[in-house]
Amino acid sequence: MHQVGLLEKGNVLGMLEDLQAIVGPAYVLTESVDVADYLTDWTGQFSVADVPVVRPRDTKEVAQVVQYCNAHGIAVTPQGGRTGLCGGGVPMDHGPAIVLSLTRLNAIREIDVAARTVVVEAGAILETLHEKTLEHGLVFPLMFGAKGSCTVGGNLSTNAGGSNVVRYGNTRELCLGVEAVMPDGSIINALTGLRKDNTGYDLKNLLIGAEGTLGIITAAVFKLVPQPVTAVTAFLSVASLEAATDVLNLLQDFSGGAVEAFEYMPKDMVATILEQFPDMRAPLAEPAASGILVEIASSRAMDAEPLPDGSTRLVEGVMGVLGDLMERELVLDAMIAQSEQQRADLWSMRESILEAITKSGPAYHFDLSLPLSKVAGFVAEMNVVSADLGFRPVIVGHLGDGNLHYAMTAGQVREWADLPLPQAKEILFDLLAKLNGSFSAEHGIGQSKLDVMADMKEPAQLVVMRAIKAALDPNNIMNPGKFLPEART
Amino acid sequence: MHQVGLLEKGNVLGMLEDLQAIVGPAYVLTESVDVADYLTDWTGQFSVADVPVVRPRDTKEVAQVVQYCNAHGIAVTPQGGRTGLCGGGVPMDHGPAIVLSLTRLNAIREIDVAARTVVVEAGAILETLHEKTLEHGLVFPLMFGAKGSCTVGGNLSTNAGGSNVVRYGNTRELCLGVEAVMPDGSIINALTGLRKDNTGYDLKNLLIGAEGTLGIITAAVFKLVPQPVTAVTAFLSVASLEAATDVLNLLQDFSGGAVEAFEYMPKDMVATILEQFPDMRAPLAEPAASGILVEIASSRAMDAEPLPDGSTRLVEGVMGVLGDLMERELVLDAMIAQSEQQRADLWSMRESILEAITKSGPAYHFDLSLPLSKVAGFVAEMNVVSADLGFRPVIVGHLGDGNLHYAMTAGQVREWADLPLPQAKEILFDLLAKLNGSFSAEHGIGQSKLDVMADMKEPAQLVVMRAIKAALDPNNIMNPGKFLPEART
Repeated sequence: MHQVGLLEKGNVLGMLEDLQAIVGPAYVLTESVDVADYLTDWTGQFSVADVPVVRPRDTKEVAQVVQYCNAHGIAVTPQGGRTGLCGGGVPMDHGPAIVLSLTRLNAIREIDVAARTVVVEAGAILETLHEKTLEHGLVFPLMFGAKGSCTVGGNLSTNAGGSNVVRYGNTRELCLGVEAVMPDGSIINALTGLRKDNTGYDLKNLLIGAEGTLGIITAAVFKLVPQPVTAVTAFLSVASLEAATDVLNLLQDFSGGAVEAFEYMPKDMVATILEQFPDMRAPLAEPAASGILVEIASSRAMDAEPLPDGSTRLVEGVMGVLGDLMERELVLDAMIAQSEQQRADLWSMRESILEAITKSGPAYHFDLSLPLSKVAGFVAEMNVVSADLGFRPVIVGHLGDGNLHYAMTAGQVREWADLPLPQAKEILFDLLAKLNGSFSAEHGIGQSKLDVMADMKEPAQLVVMRAIKAALDPNNIMNPGKFLPEART
Repeated sequence: MHQVGLLEKGNVLGMLEDLQAIVGPAYVLTESVDVADYLTDWTGQFSVADVPVVRPRDTKEVAQVVQYCNAHGIAVTPQGGRTGLCGGGVPMDHGPAIVLSLTRLNAIREIDVAARTVVVEAGAILETLHEKTLEHGLVFPLMFGAKGSCTVGGNLSTNAGGSNVVRYGNTRELCLGVEAVMPDGSIINALTGLRKDNTGYDLKNLLIGAEGTLGIITAAVFKLVPQPVTAVTAFLSVASLEAATDVLNLLQDFSGGAVEAFEYMPKDMVATILEQFPDMRAPLAEPAASGILVEIASSRAMDAEPLPDGSTRLVEGVMGVLGDLMERELVLDAMIAQSEQQRADLWSMRESILEAITKSGPAYHFDLSLPLSKVAGFVAEMNVVSADLGFRPVIVGHLGDGNLHYAMTAGQVREWADLPLPQAKEILFDLLAKLNGSFSAEHGIGQSKLDVMADMKEPAQLVVMRAIKAALDPNNIMNPGKFLPEART
């Protein structure tokens, strides 16, 4: 492996000129001031020096660049908005390499209103896509904090999740087809938008979530859903995490599967937020040991019908269900947002958690998932372990998906440096394995989770993955070093 | 390639004894009378002679059998209920081979009522799975005619569709994870039932729909949905196929996405049924040029509320929507089933179409799909071509998915043998390609569509598929000769 960046090596291959010939001189960036932004991601944890950035304008140019790099053994790191959490979008220091930025491929090619689909290029910003489809009364229901800067190509390559997965699935479930450049520079065009197509292996799903290691998705067809006509947002104090699954199921059945978000916000998390943001207000007078932020949205006109008391039929229905749940002691307390401002306040609290934890001091974040029936047991056991080891665990979770963001923080008791983090990680991962959990529910692997991938993933699956990688990218040019750990000898 | 079956060759490898040692002598079938059923599928078009049938009892035995076959170059055709339409479950005449029947792996391992998931083995009969989950008030929403004999392993390997895909997706979308035996005999266990897991390539979706060419799915975790509390079934005469998409969207929005079936039954199809089954009754007095069988089902108690006139709130709502649609002249006429018997009659008519066509005389069946916005144009153009060539086209379709079963029949005008079928196929496939359609929407490839796969599939995708196949099954033992056509030289 080369240990220096390409530019230091004096452009030995004549590579820059060749790449300029493909994309134009203005779109091969080499000056430190120009490339700096592309070589560090937003976490600040992952960066590299002296790697040129190539910015093709269309799929054909992407294919030409990849074909060139494949022929010359140059590593290609595809890049979107650099909002990933595991360092997948920044090259590792592995010798001749380029960053291939997709941001110039940002067209929304077609919105088919009748078929409720959109064809969009990889470099489009997620929020832009939201805005454009909404002009047609349609929603692209992939929602999370980074929406203003992440790209749909990044969403696809990491199979991004977020807070609406409980209703609409991950990025994978929203995608009907892709256009992609394979490691040899060939182009696959599967942008048909078909709902059914049983003609061969599922290459679309193989590329989605592969973090740019098998090819580059340059465009995709997505499903769209109708804009809801009414919604209700509430904060519940549920009796326990065990009870939460019953609460979710009853709200799903009441609403015909219209629960859009079901977010776990326990007492310690709310306390952490209120410590850091004293202007925010606790959603309930009595802190909820097991708090849940729930949102239900409906496209049914019937649900939006106004009632004499100023509420809607949907709100009335939710209140009826909550009344039943309180009688059965599954829900202890509840507040329903009475205005758009109250709704915004609840979501603002939910979205401030990462910043609140960061402001509180050092922390280690796990992104894990469990079968729904195992979540309560995991949290109970792990919280005891964490406290015993001196940590203060702060949890937020997409509970409807069994996905917890479990942060170990120092709290105010002990110094971070004195805390036994390796021991805590080992115990947590062992417990996860025992309960059939995932060590990376929605953030992916990138650079930061290579070790745990090597430790935790079933060896037989790693063998299959390596065989696929070697078959499709024999020269190992696509985002090398990441995602798939090398076989241990 | 060997041109004789294994038994004729006198068991040259000592194979039968070795396989008996793995699964027990009673479960290696070799006598003609014992193997006959396993060597022909229900279409009767695909059969083979003199191939032994091996019936392992569990995943470990499957793995041992596959490992043995891989070491000795013996072809393995995994087999479920033999209800496939393309010959995927019967070996081709390619030398040393076994049928590996999964029917002894038929346990329903676990139903998790709270998480709404089921773990089931590959050999379980679909209808048995329906019955068992229903005991818990939960539905496995994969529905089609062969449910009484097909197995979930076959459903997975062909990514089976059916009439509820418009709401719940294909088998792929219902599956949360698989256990599988790979071609080298290794076992992959991904039966976690997680809703989110971004740890590596999507092996589950690679195996689903691969028709047993990359490994054998031995068990799966599926999502379940709550049993509807009320439903409405109707037959509509829509103004045109173009109007049908608007009708679907409005019914979806009215019902919050609760349209379970949206089946195209045009005039010629209904006429064909009534010719063959004179006891059946036309759903509408005036035959509908564009007839639609629609079913909406709801888990919402509100929708089941009885009204003074004996109907339900759901029925009242549907009638309101239909009234609007008739005013806008998108719907011309409609009947709503007033009893379970009327509903059953409508579905019985829908399900009799294949038999009606078969009884009418020779026919060629296409299983195609189109982007929703292209369906109307395709049908208009193709119907003219078919008539010009002397065919009488009979169409039934899962219109909500853009999936048409387009049959060319002889009608009563000309002899089948005189009709220019090759010309009709060529024109149809050219038109499909132009409109980004699929030549196999839900039936798969198997043996019967190898030629069209070779002709129609994008060459770059075939290259990738062959690389995957060669990487995972280097000895080409898994269902060889099918699914993926050899490269043309």
